[in-house]
Amino acid sequence: MSSPAVGSRDLPHPASGEVRLEGLLHALSDPMRLRIVRELAGASGELSCSDFDLPVTKSTTTHHFRVLRESGVIRQVYRGTAKMNGLRRDDLDELFPGLLDALLDAAARQAARLGG
Amino acid sequence: MSSPAVGSRDLPHPASGEVRLEGLLHALSDPMRLRIVRELAGASGELSCSDFDLPVTKSTTTHHFRVLRESGVIRQVYRGTAKMNGLRRDDLDELFPGLLDALLDAAARQAARLGG
Repeated sequence: MSSPAVGSRDLPHPASGEVRLEGLLHALSDPMRLRIVRELAGASGELSCSDFDLPVTKSTTTHHFRVLRESGVIRQVYRGTAKMNGLRRDDLDELFPGLLDALLDAAARQAARLGG
Repeated sequence: MSSPAVGSRDLPHPASGEVRLEGLLHALSDPMRLRIVRELAGASGELSCSDFDLPVTKSTTTHHFRVLRESGVIRQVYRGTAKMNGLRRDDLDELFPGLLDALLDAAARQAARLGG
């Protein structure tokens, strides 16, 4: 009687074993999503969706975060009224050692080369 | 008079500086294309399209090779009547050091985990 039901505001995430490389690569194949992941990687903790100043509409931003969550790249949790986002670095590093760092390094190199 | 025109059968490839990380990740976000890249990485030299036994139609196979070529992942050249394929490993390693190996390792780990 005292155990709370799972809140309707809990967002679905794939378990670590359900994460697929192809889905992860698809999620990162979009420039906005790659940018979000770079910002999360450089942050000291979670960031709220409103911390990102992306040149797209709010609904498109929401879509991008959802793709990142559903592919297993980020974890999204409600804290009060804010949706907070964090990289699933531990899960990804265990599944695919070295991959996230190689992707972040590649993104940084490309940004430096193109002035992005 | 003696310099031959570029043959109409030469296939267009992006120059190294035109390769984009997002395009590369999109190219590798498909299971068939990831499989093609794994086979090319494990081959000692070029492979012809007909060396691949993929569970898709010939036209779909052609499409996948085209996506890989246009994103800068592979080089395709005609040798006689065969279209030969090779990874652009040197270009990719120079642009994004360590990325191709991390991707191949991740794909191998996933295949081992899922029995693929």
